[in-house]
Amino acid sequence: MTEEKTVTEWGNPATGLTLKITGVLHEEQTPYQHIQIVDTLQYGRMMILDGVFQTSVKDEWMYHEMIAHVPLMLHPNPQRVLIIGGGDGGCAREVCRHACVTSIDLCDIDQRVYDLSKEYFPSIASALLNPPEKLHVHTGDGIAFAKQFEDYYDVIIIDCSDPVGPGEGLFTRDFYRSAFRALKKDGILVQQSESPIVQQPLVHAVYEAMGDVFPLVRMYYSHVPIYPACMHSFMMASKKYDPLKDEARTDCPQPMKYYNRDIQKSAFVLPEFVKECLRGNYSF
Amino acid sequence: MTEEKTVTEWGNPATGLTLKITGVLHEEQTPYQHIQIVDTLQYGRMMILDGVFQTSVKDEWMYHEMIAHVPLMLHPNPQRVLIIGGGDGGCAREVCRHACVTSIDLCDIDQRVYDLSKEYFPSIASALLNPPEKLHVHTGDGIAFAKQFEDYYDVIIIDCSDPVGPGEGLFTRDFYRSAFRALKKDGILVQQSESPIVQQPLVHAVYEAMGDVFPLVRMYYSHVPIYPACMHSFMMASKKYDPLKDEARTDCPQPMKYYNRDIQKSAFVLPEFVKECLRGNYSF
Repeated sequence: MTEEKTVTEWGNPATGLTLKITGVLHEEQTPYQHIQIVDTLQYGRMMILDGVFQTSVKDEWMYHEMIAHVPLMLHPNPQRVLIIGGGDGGCAREVCRHACVTSIDLCDIDQRVYDLSKEYFPSIASALLNPPEKLHVHTGDGIAFAKQFEDYYDVIIIDCSDPVGPGEGLFTRDFYRSAFRALKKDGILVQQSESPIVQQPLVHAVYEAMGDVFPLVRMYYSHVPIYPACMHSFMMASKKYDPLKDEARTDCPQPMKYYNRDIQKSAFVLPEFVKECLRGNYSF
Repeated sequence: MTEEKTVTEWGNPATGLTLKITGVLHEEQTPYQHIQIVDTLQYGRMMILDGVFQTSVKDEWMYHEMIAHVPLMLHPNPQRVLIIGGGDGGCAREVCRHACVTSIDLCDIDQRVYDLSKEYFPSIASALLNPPEKLHVHTGDGIAFAKQFEDYYDVIIIDCSDPVGPGEGLFTRDFYRSAFRALKKDGILVQQSESPIVQQPLVHAVYEAMGDVFPLVRMYYSHVPIYPACMHSFMMASKKYDPLKDEARTDCPQPMKYYNRDIQKSAFVLPEFVKECLRGNYSF
């Protein structure tokens, strides 16, 4: 007979997601953040960084498939990919599935996220546990890492935590300019950009900042139930390809649990209030 | 200095949505259900029925626009509409905006929902407060009400609470057969059908039950942040029109806060796990 326990994440000061948990497996303070690993009743094992629900074994594909495959399928021939953040390995796992991709740099700042993901989340960290030759894992500052490259990557994916703590610098115009330089002339950048319901000013700020650097910015979304209000945005900044006009490739790896060819287009179809949010008019 | 209070709805025994509240305005037990009216910090004033978050002034249009306009725009000339449930008036308000609709029957079982909505939610209940001639408000059992009609309605909308309590009979094959009879030969039925993430077996059951009665059933979704996991399903059962093939009308009332012409199609584009859920294979 164990006492019933819950964990609540406050997406903003007014709304929280509360999950029943059956156990706390690990807890530590790294030089960068506070890490907790808990078992939840609904979504299985879950990683929490600085109090924010990060990924769980039962919902992670709703996030990882969508952050990886939407930009990779829009690009006609993505070969070199950079992932910044993503220390749980889930995004890298999905990128590895694309045969056309020949080289993946994965750069997370916190070695402990790599270590704990391999220990506690083997299904998410499978690419870290058995890395294919094309996956190169780095530990360090993603901003400094990206600065080394010019006209090099086809796709850059920013799989970061919220813009407080270690992820903060990844939400700046300075960083977007580095990423722009590191991308080839038809390169695509995608970044997770929080909730267009609960974090509207942030979504707008990312849209504006990317728009100052890239010729084209489009928002798309996925449903991620462990994130605030579940509707989760990804901001795509592109030098050439437009997801609303250009056809995606058809050779997507199979099977998928979330992504499909129709979602590639419909994920960019936004309700009116989200369009307004991107213009700086907030509903909440 | 008021003490900080919260209210939590458990979407299932494992996941809850917790909202900060600034006041409890009303609480009563009617013959049908327990009604609470609270002010929330994030979504404004909110109605709670039997502990389940029902509608709030700040997010109600994400639900009401989508339950009303998707079937009404798919039908080429909807004239007679029946709304079962919907005692807050939000669905009726949206249906009233369609000039082609000449007669709306609204039938909620609980007179107190009508009364309290008019008193505490004037923006949602505007059609109840100033009813246009075409709106006919009834208080009573929607199942019995629908049984009186044959070959009569163009669109029936089931804007009900969860299938426990007063809403239970609205989720049965018997009721769907009555609704089928009450609809004209090209009629459309839409019912709110809970969360395809947190209530997968229920979504599957509604899909199966409607499919036993109607030739065509399609699921679509909206984002409703006060509902469990936010991704909220609507089940459309149709005698003739197919939302995936037939073009919707173009004369939608304006302005909208959620609905637009592209959403009319994209709301039916389902992630792979939702398609699997409709086949009876659950992810959660």
